[in-house]
Amino acid sequence: MALALAQAREAADSGEVPIGAVVVKDGRIVSVGRNGPRERHDPTSHAEIEAIRSAARALGNERLDGCELWVTLEPCAMCAGAIVHARIARLYYAASDAKGGAVEHGARVFEHDQCLHKPEVYAGIGEKESAELLRRFFRERR
Amino acid sequence: MALALAQAREAADSGEVPIGAVVVKDGRIVSVGRNGPRERHDPTSHAEIEAIRSAARALGNERLDGCELWVTLEPCAMCAGAIVHARIARLYYAASDAKGGAVEHGARVFEHDQCLHKPEVYAGIGEKESAELLRRFFRERR
Repeated sequence: MALALAQAREAADSGEVPIGAVVVKDGRIVSVGRNGPRERHDPTSHAEIEAIRSAARALGNERLDGCELWVTLEPCAMCAGAIVHARIARLYYAASDAKGGAVEHGARVFEHDQCLHKPEVYAGIGEKESAELLRRFFRERR
Repeated sequence: MALALAQAREAADSGEVPIGAVVVKDGRIVSVGRNGPRERHDPTSHAEIEAIRSAARALGNERLDGCELWVTLEPCAMCAGAIVHARIARLYYAASDAKGGAVEHGARVFEHDQCLHKPEVYAGIGEKESAELLRRFFRERR
């Protein structure tokens, strides 16, 4: 999660909402990603999507079986859907997101019968650091 | 929708599930996309995501204000989330998808209070052609 938080800080330095993600397989880092929709002109450029796309490219497979995704904020519906499609085995996220999260809030993407793959979910690791990064970012922009 | 269906046929010719999408603005085609996760080693490579990313690149803006998305199948949670982030004004889809759809089924992404942008939704245009393309694709693969 320290590496995901470092990615989030990098996003903030580029003027993007500070969210970072890392894909890990068998204890080794496969890819990192950070939020960047504005600079990349890409509404899908969330940290999770970037990390998942990069990992799938690196592993030469659209399925990331056995991989873990570490991300600094509760994934939105788009990213939760991507986690399902990628068959991520374990999801670790830092802060929860009542406004945009879709794991424990809103669409609760993993909670429907039609959901073909449910990752194990662990929340709260690094929560304080992640929430503080986001608070500082939005405070400075006000 | 005819163009989206042509994109779907192209996906089938490449061995991918036949789903196609088109982004339109002010009556003009901005981008097309088709399903391609296997060949592209990208679990996010759904027709809608490809069309949205391509349109945002073409317009130099991560927000596709005033754009329409035409797609041959009811979007999944990932794609519905991307439609929200992209601020797609109107969504037209052909066939509904009880198994994977997240507009009128499952996660119903646009139906939550936290959903910051709800497109107008029109379903059923080209439904028969789209459903037949999908049926034929899966029949031939069995």
